[in-house]
Amino acid sequence: MDRLLYGAAYYDEYMPCERLSQDVEMMKKAGINTVRIAESTWSTCEPQEGVFDFSHVERVMDAMEEAGMGVIIGTPTYAVPTWMVKSYPDVLAETRKGRGIYGPRQIMDITHPAYLFYAERVIRKLMECTAHRKCVIGFQIDNETKPYGTAGRNVQEKFVKYLRKKFNNDLDALNAEFGLNYWSNRINAWEDFPDVRGTINGSLGAEFEKFQRSLVTDFLRWQAEIVSEYKREDQFITHNLDLCWRGYSYGVQPEVDHYEVAKCLTIAGVDIYHPSQDQLTGEEIAFGGDLMRSLKKDNYLVIETEAQGFPDWTPYDGQLRLQAFSHVASGANSVMYWHWHSLHNACETYWKGVLSHDLQENAVYREVCTIGNDFKRIGSHLVNLKKQNRVTILVSNEALTALKWFSIQMHGGSEDYNDIVRWMYNTLYHMNIECDFIWPETESADMDAYEAILVPALYAASDAVLERLNCYVEQGGTLIATFKTGFANEKVKVSHDAQPHILNRCFGVTYQEFAFPKQVKLTGESLAAFSDKDREASVFMELLMPQGAEVLASYEHPNWGRYAAVTKNTYGKGSAVYIGCKTTENMLEKIFRETLPETILTEEPEERFPVIVRKGVNDLGRKVYYYLNYSGQEQNARYAGTEGTELLSGRHVTNGEALILPAWGFQVIEAVFPS
Amino acid sequence: MDRLLYGAAYYDEYMPCERLSQDVEMMKKAGINTVRIAESTWSTCEPQEGVFDFSHVERVMDAMEEAGMGVIIGTPTYAVPTWMVKSYPDVLAETRKGRGIYGPRQIMDITHPAYLFYAERVIRKLMECTAHRKCVIGFQIDNETKPYGTAGRNVQEKFVKYLRKKFNNDLDALNAEFGLNYWSNRINAWEDFPDVRGTINGSLGAEFEKFQRSLVTDFLRWQAEIVSEYKREDQFITHNLDLCWRGYSYGVQPEVDHYEVAKCLTIAGVDIYHPSQDQLTGEEIAFGGDLMRSLKKDNYLVIETEAQGFPDWTPYDGQLRLQAFSHVASGANSVMYWHWHSLHNACETYWKGVLSHDLQENAVYREVCTIGNDFKRIGSHLVNLKKQNRVTILVSNEALTALKWFSIQMHGGSEDYNDIVRWMYNTLYHMNIECDFIWPETESADMDAYEAILVPALYAASDAVLERLNCYVEQGGTLIATFKTGFANEKVKVSHDAQPHILNRCFGVTYQEFAFPKQVKLTGESLAAFSDKDREASVFMELLMPQGAEVLASYEHPNWGRYAAVTKNTYGKGSAVYIGCKTTENMLEKIFRETLPETILTEEPEERFPVIVRKGVNDLGRKVYYYLNYSGQEQNARYAGTEGTELLSGRHVTNGEALILPAWGFQVIEAVFPS
Amino acid sequence: MDRLLYGAAYYDEYMPCERLSQDVEMMKKAGINTVRIAESTWSTCEPQEGVFDFSHVERVMDAMEEAGMGVIIGTPTYAVPTWMVKSYPDVLAETRKGRGIYGPRQIMDITHPAYLFYAERVIRKLMECTAHRKCVIGFQIDNETKPYGTAGRNVQEKFVKYLRKKFNNDLDALNAEFGLNYWSNRINAWEDFPDVRGTINGSLGAEFEKFQRSLVTDFLRWQAEIVSEYKREDQFITHNLDLCWRGYSYGVQPEVDHYEVAKCLTIAGVDIYHPSQDQLTGEEIAFGGDLMRSLKKDNYLVIETEAQGFPDWTPYDGQLRLQAFSHVASGANSVMYWHWHSLHNACETYWKGVLSHDLQENAVYREVCTIGNDFKRIGSHLVNLKKQNRVTILVSNEALTALKWFSIQMHGGSEDYNDIVRWMYNTLYHMNIECDFIWPETESADMDAYEAILVPALYAASDAVLERLNCYVEQGGTLIATFKTGFANEKVKVSHDAQPHILNRCFGVTYQEFAFPKQVKLTGESLAAFSDKDREASVFMELLMPQGAEVLASYEHPNWGRYAAVTKNTYGKGSAVYIGCKTTENMLEKIFRETLPETILTEEPEERFPVIVRKGVNDLGRKVYYYLNYSGQEQNARYAGTEGTELLSGRHVTNGEALILPAWGFQVIEAVFPS
Repeated sequence: MDRLLYGAAYYDEYMPCERLSQDVEMMKKAGINTVRIAESTWSTCEPQEGVFDFSHVERVMDAMEEAGMGVIIGTPTYAVPTWMVKSYPDVLAETRKGRGIYGPRQIMDITHPAYLFYAERVIRKLMECTAHRKCVIGFQIDNETKPYGTAGRNVQEKFVKYLRKKFNNDLDALNAEFGLNYWSNRINAWEDFPDVRGTINGSLGAEFEKFQRSLVTDFLRWQAEIVSEYKREDQFITHNLDLCWRGYSYGVQPEVDHYEVAKCLTIAGVDIYHPSQDQLTGEEIAFGGDLMRSLKKDNYLVIETEAQGFPDWTPYDGQLRLQAFSHVASGANSVMYWHWHSLHNACETYWKGVLSHDLQENAVYREVCTIGNDFKRIGSHLVNLKKQNRVTILVSNEALTALKWFSIQMHGGSEDYNDIVRWMYNTLYHMNIECDFIWPETESADMDAYEAILVPALYAASDAVLERLNCYVEQGGTLIATFKTGFANEKVKVSHDAQPHILNRCFGVTYQEFAFPKQVKLTGESLAAFSDKDREASVFMELLMPQGAEVLASYEHPNWGRYAAVTKNTYGKGSAVYIGCKTTENMLEKIFRETLPETILTEEPEERFPVIVRKGVNDLGRKVYYYLNYSGQEQNARYAGTEGTELLSGRHVTNGEALILPAWGFQVIEAVFPS
Repeated sequence: MDRLLYGAAYYDEYMPCERLSQDVEMMKKAGINTVRIAESTWSTCEPQEGVFDFSHVERVMDAMEEAGMGVIIGTPTYAVPTWMVKSYPDVLAETRKGRGIYGPRQIMDITHPAYLFYAERVIRKLMECTAHRKCVIGFQIDNETKPYGTAGRNVQEKFVKYLRKKFNNDLDALNAEFGLNYWSNRINAWEDFPDVRGTINGSLGAEFEKFQRSLVTDFLRWQAEIVSEYKREDQFITHNLDLCWRGYSYGVQPEVDHYEVAKCLTIAGVDIYHPSQDQLTGEEIAFGGDLMRSLKKDNYLVIETEAQGFPDWTPYDGQLRLQAFSHVASGANSVMYWHWHSLHNACETYWKGVLSHDLQENAVYREVCTIGNDFKRIGSHLVNLKKQNRVTILVSNEALTALKWFSIQMHGGSEDYNDIVRWMYNTLYHMNIECDFIWPETESADMDAYEAILVPALYAASDAVLERLNCYVEQGGTLIATFKTGFANEKVKVSHDAQPHILNRCFGVTYQEFAFPKQVKLTGESLAAFSDKDREASVFMELLMPQGAEVLASYEHPNWGRYAAVTKNTYGKGSAVYIGCKTTENMLEKIFRETLPETILTEEPEERFPVIVRKGVNDLGRKVYYYLNYSGQEQNARYAGTEGTELLSGRHVTNGEALILPAWGFQVIEAVFPS
Repeated sequence: MDRLLYGAAYYDEYMPCERLSQDVEMMKKAGINTVRIAESTWSTCEPQEGVFDFSHVERVMDAMEEAGMGVIIGTPTYAVPTWMVKSYPDVLAETRKGRGIYGPRQIMDITHPAYLFYAERVIRKLMECTAHRKCVIGFQIDNETKPYGTAGRNVQEKFVKYLRKKFNNDLDALNAEFGLNYWSNRINAWEDFPDVRGTINGSLGAEFEKFQRSLVTDFLRWQAEIVSEYKREDQFITHNLDLCWRGYSYGVQPEVDHYEVAKCLTIAGVDIYHPSQDQLTGEEIAFGGDLMRSLKKDNYLVIETEAQGFPDWTPYDGQLRLQAFSHVASGANSVMYWHWHSLHNACETYWKGVLSHDLQENAVYREVCTIGNDFKRIGSHLVNLKKQNRVTILVSNEALTALKWFSIQMHGGSEDYNDIVRWMYNTLYHMNIECDFIWPETESADMDAYEAILVPALYAASDAVLERLNCYVEQGGTLIATFKTGFANEKVKVSHDAQPHILNRCFGVTYQEFAFPKQVKLTGESLAAFSDKDREASVFMELLMPQGAEVLASYEHPNWGRYAAVTKNTYGKGSAVYIGCKTTENMLEKIFRETLPETILTEEPEERFPVIVRKGVNDLGRKVYYYLNYSGQEQNARYAGTEGTELLSGRHVTNGEALILPAWGFQVIEAVFPS
């Protein structure tokens, strides 16, 4: 990419009045150089079956082209027109709750031939109309695609065929692996296969969800292939991947295999929404960014992020600017708002865009102007930021899903897979240790490139993955894993040998029992200085019995006192740390400090959250340092690089120089000499 | 009406034993002069299709006639007999949740021809049997009617016809006004109209609810017309209107247009239930009463209110009496209990009547006797109380529904339309400022008669209504409106000019952004004496930018400090106050004191809640003052009228005389000379 | 029974690997002598319709027989195979929520002929294969059977026939008794009978639930009769009855008439699960045990109880042992764990058995070994423990169901029937007063054998039952009943004479009103020493008016002060205590102390919870005393029996000797001489 993309989703067709030229003017003034259009306009561009009208797309492309702005074309397939549902009611997905009713977006069966037939036709028509246009810089296929719970007869029949293939037609093998004898769920003939929507079998249930994720991969690959027939070399294909949603972008997406989907994209794209005002921390910006950057080991696009957003997100002065630069500091090559104008009808009226409902300049627009013009001015120093991280976190859809079926929360616990991921991630973030992500599918060579792998709650994994991790340690790596790792295989069958399965070798520890920690603290020689509150164990507690490992902490409790809580083991050339319970973040930080390789710890900046430090190398081969203040109070930092230039002010900065960061402010320093 | 009606719903057909003559004796002793019968007896009076048996109605009328008591006849249509559902299962409404199952009352489709056919026949038969009876003083059509969520195919087809008419068959206009382009919801042919039950479009959804309310109006008008064919001149037609239910009668009824329904009634009727014991405040009695009195600008009937009610309503000594006189003080011409005896079966067994399950005299019955005999003695001084209030509150079903679709609560707020209405109302109530209600449909002349109009959260309103309010100020009125006023039009399309739409002219203020107040206080010169707690902002916060208005209060907050919170503007001959956030009641009281016209403030009694003062003029043209003590402690008051008589004791009272009000007690003073 | 059964449910067919001989070895080492098998294996033993394969049952029987262990055979009918549902989808029960989807167990219609046909065939085949085997000591018919909400057309037609019979075809009688006139629910022709799933009529609803309970009785009797055709004289028939489930075994089972079902069993069986760790109290062990022992007035089997159970149940050291001996102390002749090994798949993976997932010896297994070997050693002194209690508690499914339909919780209360039962039971338990249970159906002679009957909230009961209780007092018994007793008849029609119906004679008290106690305390001469907290009234409050009874406590409250709260009355030769509200446990203990017969109070041990004392007479005619410490701290006790032997240690113990009970520890002392 040759410049930072700065822009917004633009919905000319939602406008309550003619605004196009005025909007273009306002955008240009703000330094906006890209709009995303067309992605939810099926009923507008195909008003009746086979009748096409792309005039609303054309007119926007015309205007943008004239203004010298870029356009991302979204295929319009994530919301179907009324006529399709009227004629083919069963394009709406049949889920556990039955068939949906028309109204919401994203409720169709993405495997249904009628849907696919119409989708293909409208995509091709749209491509014919847009792909050759100069202003069109790339394509977004569909939007935030999910399986939408599709589980009708057709889908279930596909699933049975999938299982027959997976198990080489061997039903006994399936019964054994999934443990279907339990509660008489055994299936003795393929034609007896029951409605999977009712299953209580976690192996079968998780497998069906894996199958549903594969439907998303297939669907997006199919769209990418169609688009590829039309697109120019210089045009990208992306998708608006989104994270697990908890009112904001929280964690690993349970319903989509990001790793697989990314293969059909030329660049990863994402939407990142996050708390704001006093709750703005940058955690989601960094988390989502690191995840996206890791997918294709390259820069990525932020396709949507909040401008004003909800009333509890209305940004304070400076926050929007801090956010924009934070995205870029994580390796984003774009910052695009959802959306340009606030909607006057329908349902997302309070998810406000850059402009308020009055469509006039406002506080947010004015801050957008400063960002856009900064990007214009210094963007060439910021774009294509590359990182070489030494730490990575292993995340897994299989583990997430399995830990949903066998939830910690079921009998008293309080957290799920993503909470454990975020606990590890946030601790690194607050320490200013940058990291990447890997997946079970990541190739060994890529895995071995890291000096430390963190493994949150890898509840379900194949023996092969566990053996590779074991081997990684043996060959000199540092592995830090939490409770619930290595418990079940990829079919969610719990191992019947010593826990953690296979990994007990490298960890030098095993356990047979576990409980919920109630008034349990960690204790150990090195914890003398820790407060009672900092020593609290929470969420889940495995009763560890070292088999050679060193005990870093034990449980303080009348009955559980004889068990270890955190252990460290030397194995081969490497070292492996096992954390048997959820700890406080301070405790985890201490564990990291004691067990991460020196090479990592010596690079750790002296700043800590709320000052966030991000680094990378730019297109000029120079190192760039971001010092970001995630607080409403002025903060101090110290520049750690070699002689440099603060890019916004042009100020010269020397190593060790004190930096003053205003509330929600930041500095970006580029080393003078290439590293 | 020539006397206060005092009575109860009477269910002879629910009695576990023969009780009629004994009940009549007990009623007479208690001073009860009216019973309401027949309103849920369809299965009894038409045991099989076309077979009629009104003997249970006749025998009660006979007994009451002999005892000289009046009877209100309820049409029995709100609960259908089993045979109807057996033969025509689709008389049960199909709702968002599907078709109902027989059992509860009020689950039928009030538009279904089969239901209407049978309903008309049984009403006519009942009228033939009752209308000519001397004891029958009036009719209640149906009971607490609602649309019951009816949304089956037939209803939706009616709705589409309604829309075609409303939009002159112009689908493009509908798409534009409702913003259906969003998420591809655009409808390009009438025959494509999707099932409205699934819609996520707030404009379409709110319009359907408005349509559903019109079904109630149509249904009740139709019943009223049938009854009118039979009724005598001296017999009234009423309906048991009920308020928004939150375990008690809370606010504006969302599912019925009271204003429209009232047109087909000769007198408004209402049920009012409220917390009791230590929670008894009189707020609901006053609120419901003021609303009902305003509907037809006349006295009204309290058709149902609690005797013992639920276990948490079992009244303390004196409370029932205080309640009865409070109803009359608001302009009620009746106090009727639901119900005479407690039920021994079914489901409302714990909603206890005057008599407990043992059907004997009890504490409540003994208090009823004192009330009944007081009414007999001094009722002619109490009946037909008239009021001439200077303040009114504008309430709107459209605003309520729109603010449900775009709920403040959606992303962190905590209140809805009725909470804001009650906040304003309760503040006036506690200040002893009596008020009326008006609706968007109220005629201009009626509106102009008031010196001040309060407008809680008029979220959706037509331009015409907003222009009228603007004009009201211009011509000298005082307008006090809250946040969320004038945001969207009556189709729930948000205005795309300066907020508040149109009214920004009279308010001299606008805003572009809003947020939820978190640790935000109001601040201003005149607030120095206010405690931190009293200065808290809550619920929602608009960031006001004065365009000429005087700032009464600003926000105290690191980021929002530059915005105004409460403003006052002189516009034409009048003045307009805008309140940008929810405040404490003390703060709102202060705003009222600073901004209401002097004429109102000088009339304000010196008493404050828990002493409530109500006033009016009786049939003798004399002013009547109620001093009501809503507390368990003795209270003092001071008589503000001219030379008068305390009606219960006959005691002579002079202006300025100190009144001692016992716990849950009261005094009623009639001025000696007509005013 | 000639020995204590000690064992576990054993699922060879769920094992992830061949384990049989190893498991048998481990069991023998642990002193386990019994396994329960086959109860959820239908899909394994009848893999396709009419194809039978019992090899997995045979091989376990072979192994157990060789090892000298006993086997309990469970009929496999509580979970149906996939082929049955595929061919006959309507064997799945149709409930209020519609037809179920295959997956969970216990979702079939237990009245459906297709289900019954296949069930009978598989039971007969299983019996043919197992009944003659030497190792088979008994049979468990089905498992934790319930009606599963079955309410399809077929079931409802049966219900109407049941009503026609009950009311001698007299529909008017039914309408009158159930109060169906209410809300027009009157049924005027049998063919009009509406879908009972929608009813709001508590009488009809409760009757349908009673009918559903009768389906369970019929179903289990039918299974027992089939099994009886095959079983030997020495083989028992039992069922795994379970209690009301609140995450553990809490109270009276609402969906099954235990009293009726027990008639078709040769010995009662039960599962008892309970909180553990710091929450272990023994309450559920004692409650469930007393209930089961009372069913057939004999010893009973604990068929399932927790080994490790859920993570919050993982036992502390000693707890498993304390639990096992507590079961036996209540009269259990077996302690059987659910289950031997932890499951590796499906859904109960975290309901852990004796062995953890690694199938190796662990902490729990080691404790099981000590228990098993103790039982082997001294079991003959423990088995068949008999009790002769003087106090009994009357419990009733009818009352429970009626109090669900007319819930105290509906308008502010916080408890239900079982909470009131457990309040009374727990108070006795903490006082170490052992008790039995009786039912409304219990014969008069059995009832009269007790010196005191406690009656928690007997909300619905026939006149006959109430007359018998009245008569019981008249003839010298002590009756202690709580609020909500004697309110409605067995058809849930509230009495229309003085409350409590009939019993007001023996209690010498009546009431007409009730309320929820809010800041209400009990007050009375004898309560001077009680703290404010101990005097609190809660849940519900009847306003008692004594008609001759002595007032033990009144309400302390500005308005309710004139009413009594607890009364005591001498009636005939006996005495009757009425408790009008929920009190603290300390208060209830005081009431018991003041009102229970001296014979009971003089026998009361001096120990109180957490030291629990249980007694009985063993097969040798000797009295056995259990001193159980339900706490994590060492406790003292004093041996109250005559010269004895502590059975575990063989130590000689004399009357009055001090006993030291370690944390979660106990002593078992057998008197030397027969009593």
